[in-house]
Amino acid sequence: MKTYNDYLSEVEQIFADEKFLAEPRGLYEPIDYTLRLGGKRIRPTLLLIANALFGGDTASVRHAALGIETFHNFTLLHDDLMDRSPLRRGQPTVYTRWNDNTAILSGDTMYALAWRYFLRQPSPRMHEALQCFNETAIEVCEGQQYDMDFERRDDVTIDQYMMMIRKKTAVLLAGALKIGALYAGAAPLDADTLYRFGIHLGLAFQLDDDRLDAYGDTSVFGKKTGQDIRDNKKTFLFLRALELASRSNPDAAARLRQLFASRPADEEQKVGEVLDIYRSLGMMAEVAQAIDAQNTLALRALDSLRVDDALKLPLRQLTESLMGRKK
Amino acid sequence: MKTYNDYLSEVEQIFADEKFLAEPRGLYEPIDYTLRLGGKRIRPTLLLIANALFGGDTASVRHAALGIETFHNFTLLHDDLMDRSPLRRGQPTVYTRWNDNTAILSGDTMYALAWRYFLRQPSPRMHEALQCFNETAIEVCEGQQYDMDFERRDDVTIDQYMMMIRKKTAVLLAGALKIGALYAGAAPLDADTLYRFGIHLGLAFQLDDDRLDAYGDTSVFGKKTGQDIRDNKKTFLFLRALELASRSNPDAAARLRQLFASRPADEEQKVGEVLDIYRSLGMMAEVAQAIDAQNTLALRALDSLRVDDALKLPLRQLTESLMGRKK
Repeated sequence: MKTYNDYLSEVEQIFADEKFLAEPRGLYEPIDYTLRLGGKRIRPTLLLIANALFGGDTASVRHAALGIETFHNFTLLHDDLMDRSPLRRGQPTVYTRWNDNTAILSGDTMYALAWRYFLRQPSPRMHEALQCFNETAIEVCEGQQYDMDFERRDDVTIDQYMMMIRKKTAVLLAGALKIGALYAGAAPLDADTLYRFGIHLGLAFQLDDDRLDAYGDTSVFGKKTGQDIRDNKKTFLFLRALELASRSNPDAAARLRQLFASRPADEEQKVGEVLDIYRSLGMMAEVAQAIDAQNTLALRALDSLRVDDALKLPLRQLTESLMGRKK
Repeated sequence: MKTYNDYLSEVEQIFADEKFLAEPRGLYEPIDYTLRLGGKRIRPTLLLIANALFGGDTASVRHAALGIETFHNFTLLHDDLMDRSPLRRGQPTVYTRWNDNTAILSGDTMYALAWRYFLRQPSPRMHEALQCFNETAIEVCEGQQYDMDFERRDDVTIDQYMMMIRKKTAVLLAGALKIGALYAGAAPLDADTLYRFGIHLGLAFQLDDDRLDAYGDTSVFGKKTGQDIRDNKKTFLFLRALELASRSNPDAAARLRQLFASRPADEEQKVGEVLDIYRSLGMMAEVAQAIDAQNTLALRALDSLRVDDALKLPLRQLTESLMGRKK
């Protein structure tokens, strides 16, 4: 039986075989640079796995896999520019290595190239797949807008935060799965069940990212911890801590608000103080519980999927890898 | 028989009836603002006319018309940001009225909304129409890149310039026509003939824009003349003047190069000097001739189109309006 890593290797082969360079060079070199940088390739891998669940083979979704990853990387080009993030996967982002205009225009072109890939992938269910792709794209844009809006608000609720990360992160994982299923001719019910699995998986992933920012092992995680705290990002940890402190310890709640409204010269002192408050509120267990809740919902959706259990292995492996990261 | 303005009125009605506002407001307000600003609406009007040429009615391409104009306005949001153009249609551009990130993200969303419109427009020839739309989008991005590249080069030829404006401007007019024709079930030969008409029409339009920048009546044209000269834009006028001067008057050629490499404090003196050189080379007649050549090719394509001559009236009117502007 094929594992998650088997599908991932197929995706890596697809990208190694594909040519991204064309004229004009100034437009396509940043595209080639971005698509060759690697990354986890999780979306195209999910698309392949979902397709295989319903009897499709890799060749039949090769272009769709290229399309979903090209779209994802388009969003990274624009998000990194909007968020002024200088590094991605340990390398300079496009706006840093080239300039702002290049990030805008090469990004736009990647979005168009994603469509070229999808339109080259024939299937009787193509129209449904294209609509799913497009509605996903709109939600991803909305998610990014909410994310930027929330930075300037101080009344964001946990529900609103979950809605934002659902749009910004989860729908594209869910969309990749649904598109893969549709290309293999899955029944609408199954495609939707898989979509639901993807939503919960995506939420679990994002909550885990929030967790790693505070509690991750820098040597494994690759990023400096506490960046969300330095940036005053209202992640699950902050919002849930505020909620708990408001009930049990109003002084801590007030101090948290104050810290997340400041950009002090001594950032490490701030990170330390926030982590102390988190500790006093038991946030490590809180976030672990929230991740488990999403994982449980994901696995429940997977269980209800009407396909051979053995084929579900790669998706189980992915879900379990999340559980594993917390140990 | 319906005139160009009849179709334009239908397009204006379609936009008046459409709702663009949604949540989150920060994302959709700039979209609503942009799509309500008006503009010439030439692309959706062409789409309706092309559709009617082959027996389609307006209702059957309503969404496609919204789609092509939404796409066009997406490119304006990003181009105005990249070119730092503060005004469009006499109003502040999105990056000026809001900010850079809004122009990027609301622009991306408009691109996705354009796809939503197209995907909602059923037709047996939909796949061809979508492919035409997408390949057009890729060429528009390439055209914008060439335009930015050419600003930093001093060896651009007239052929290269024509290739650039074909991609940046002409293909979207041509694409609008072809898509309209495909939605009405036009034969491939006819759709391609109409596309060719659109290319030459688009080139004529862009050359006329170049002409108006130097010779336009400000009170009619609405823009200050000489802006391309102030910006050192290598338009047809500059490139053709350089070509002619290189043969007949090397000193004038050298001076032109020098002027287009400078940004003097006294801009009006520079504009005056460039216009003097243009006059000495007979550039007004040169550009008129280049426009006529494209118009002639456009009309030839239109003549060869295998549909009732009376139905071609609106497209003839559009071509003739260009001829008229030169008087």
